[in-house]
Amino acid sequence: MRMVDIIIKKRMKQELSEEEIKFFVKGYANDNTIPDYQASALTMAILLNGMNAKETSLLTDAMKNSGEVIDLSMIRGIKVDKHSTGGVGDKTSLVLGPLVASCGAPVAKMSGRGLGHTGGTLDKMESIPGMSINLTEKQFIDQVNNIGIAIMGQTSELVPADKKLYSLRDVTGTVESLPLIASSIMSKKLATGSDAICLDVKYGSGAFCKTIDDARDLARAMVDIGTHLNKNTKAVLSNMEQPLGNAIGNILEVKEAVNTLNGKGPQDLVELCMDIGSLMLVQAKVCNNEENAKVLLKENLDNGKAFEKLLEFIEAQGGDISYLKDLSKFDVASKVVDIYASQDGYISKMDALTLGNAAMKLGAGREKKEDIIDYTAGIVLACKVGDYVKKGDKLLTIHTNVDDQHLENVKDEILCAIEYSNVHIAKKKLIEEVVE
Amino acid sequence: MRMVDIIIKKRMKQELSEEEIKFFVKGYANDNTIPDYQASALTMAILLNGMNAKETSLLTDAMKNSGEVIDLSMIRGIKVDKHSTGGVGDKTSLVLGPLVASCGAPVAKMSGRGLGHTGGTLDKMESIPGMSINLTEKQFIDQVNNIGIAIMGQTSELVPADKKLYSLRDVTGTVESLPLIASSIMSKKLATGSDAICLDVKYGSGAFCKTIDDARDLARAMVDIGTHLNKNTKAVLSNMEQPLGNAIGNILEVKEAVNTLNGKGPQDLVELCMDIGSLMLVQAKVCNNEENAKVLLKENLDNGKAFEKLLEFIEAQGGDISYLKDLSKFDVASKVVDIYASQDGYISKMDALTLGNAAMKLGAGREKKEDIIDYTAGIVLACKVGDYVKKGDKLLTIHTNVDDQHLENVKDEILCAIEYSNVHIAKKKLIEEVVE
Repeated sequence: MRMVDIIIKKRMKQELSEEEIKFFVKGYANDNTIPDYQASALTMAILLNGMNAKETSLLTDAMKNSGEVIDLSMIRGIKVDKHSTGGVGDKTSLVLGPLVASCGAPVAKMSGRGLGHTGGTLDKMESIPGMSINLTEKQFIDQVNNIGIAIMGQTSELVPADKKLYSLRDVTGTVESLPLIASSIMSKKLATGSDAICLDVKYGSGAFCKTIDDARDLARAMVDIGTHLNKNTKAVLSNMEQPLGNAIGNILEVKEAVNTLNGKGPQDLVELCMDIGSLMLVQAKVCNNEENAKVLLKENLDNGKAFEKLLEFIEAQGGDISYLKDLSKFDVASKVVDIYASQDGYISKMDALTLGNAAMKLGAGREKKEDIIDYTAGIVLACKVGDYVKKGDKLLTIHTNVDDQHLENVKDEILCAIEYSNVHIAKKKLIEEVVE
Repeated sequence: MRMVDIIIKKRMKQELSEEEIKFFVKGYANDNTIPDYQASALTMAILLNGMNAKETSLLTDAMKNSGEVIDLSMIRGIKVDKHSTGGVGDKTSLVLGPLVASCGAPVAKMSGRGLGHTGGTLDKMESIPGMSINLTEKQFIDQVNNIGIAIMGQTSELVPADKKLYSLRDVTGTVESLPLIASSIMSKKLATGSDAICLDVKYGSGAFCKTIDDARDLARAMVDIGTHLNKNTKAVLSNMEQPLGNAIGNILEVKEAVNTLNGKGPQDLVELCMDIGSLMLVQAKVCNNEENAKVLLKENLDNGKAFEKLLEFIEAQGGDISYLKDLSKFDVASKVVDIYASQDGYISKMDALTLGNAAMKLGAGREKKEDIIDYTAGIVLACKVGDYVKKGDKLLTIHTNVDDQHLENVKDEILCAIEYSNVHIAKKKLIEEVVE
């Protein structure tokens, strides 16, 4: 088999076989027998000529097998992994993890860190004093069997093919390929060994997919991969035009997650957690249908069981739960500045991308991988799209430790993220569709 | 400027600017700042999304300027360069060079060697004892000014970008791109400094282009490049389903060229030389129109002037012209074997590719660049497509020095190249169209 023939085949819009796809992934990522210049020609041909669902699944499987594949079979029950394509203010995993675990579905999750305007679950967890995200595989498995939930950082051995291929795609203009994006995400999910996958594919300014059509295509591609590889996979398409919930920034989001688990969460975050959580409980076969699942989820938010599970989970990984019991113990930024409405009107826009980037510049995120996060920094919204405000009403609060000049610049950016309308703006549904 | 943005632009089917094309060629071929993996992603995007005539011309010009560009301005007159895309039995340059030079058009030509089933003018020239193809630039220019014709080998400094890019395309499945093929050929032609270009784009089994439609597209692309870069460029589309003339192989083709220059050439070769020669004489402004040009060409074939010019040309480059005056002086292969018709009928096929490969295997050509040629080896056809033969009539003669077993194998291949028909086969026109 010759790599050049595989490239020509895809160039001519023909379907690649399992042998050809395996030959490419193994030769490129494991054996180093296929050079970058052949891999980049193939990825460009894939971007322009596409791959069907079968090819995409074969590519995903081959990539998954390029490194370690976690074996979670020692964990009792059906492990459902929830994965979000990334957004602003997205603390869903911190809420959903303990919530579905409290309902009896085992949660064995490997999470990532934030970059750019999007946050990451690991960073939020680490903003709780004492909390560790470094577990051995045995600790991880034992913890899930003992208390029903563990969340840890991904080990670097997972899917080396994705790491190498993504670096190449980044410099050869081949990032924006649907089958390559879908196989990149799904190979990593599959390598973490869960039994079923529930995807939160976000769309809008703060998301990777800018439109619902893009999100639907990506969701379809990923669900198809799951189906081909015999993993029960579902996806919701959720709106990311404005931040999710009110808090952006690590400690601020942990506080919001705690409030949500105590039944006092913002409406959109609660809605998302109920929708995704009910899908997960059905996938985990804890409930027969989503209606029953929602009743159970609501019960556990109200009766304190979800919050109790959070405490168990954080304590098991070394976190100081006194902070969760008394949120006022958390550090607060040196500068806490309210921003007020400049006019009367309905809020018509709170741009997620602009606010996410602003939060990052306030210290809450990383511009580059090696940047250090200020856990206290961020933004708390006092209103959302559709709310009516009068001039002088509080729009949001900035939390930061940056110098005044820098703060002024970010403030200007934040003001540009907000638009008003004279006419009533209907609140949009957060989840438009479920793809399965 | 970033290479990745140039790749993305072409990936999105946008037109590349002059600056972007220059940035790519210089960075890739001259400065080594652009790695192979970015160049291969771009060439795949070009192959799949195309390039318009303007972009193709800019690429050609940038490639031409990646190395030395020959200055022929010291040669008097309009220098017309004839270039063939390669075929079997194509000794046109050996005939046309002296012929148009004898009519007063200066011929300052850089030629190539043969590879695979196609022959090369340099190899044919070197089969004449004493003949040298290594001239300095000054010798080359002086010779054209003195006797009107010189043909030499290309110096390696010409168009390094093409050499590097072609090697990459060869292993990344991006050879078959019309703009890349056209710019590769034309950049080399333009670097050799002629004032006008006459292209012989061959089509059929023995040619690079398998169909006349492919040949027309390639001719169109190359003529457009010439037009954009202010070089008078014309192209003929000529048939290469069967070999050109009767002889295949170096000494055998030199003999046929000599006979043609003495007015005794095979009909198809003479027709091609008259057609291309008349275009060249008009491009060189030696004649006002092609009718007058054909009269002049015919005269010089009949009155001995074309043959006299051949003798001058060969002598000037050290060749022993006594061989040309007495063709029986040339070495003859140790085995000269006639092949006879196995049945009565009209010859319907004499496959150029099969016969070209057979001649190569008999010793007349190179399978790999470093192979050594047997100048005496080859094939001489005794009939052509459309001729009627009776069983036992001579079809062709094999000339070779290979061992008997190898000869038998090649003989079997040759027999497969020939097909018969019971119905009359009309002789096809050699040149179907002129593209200008």
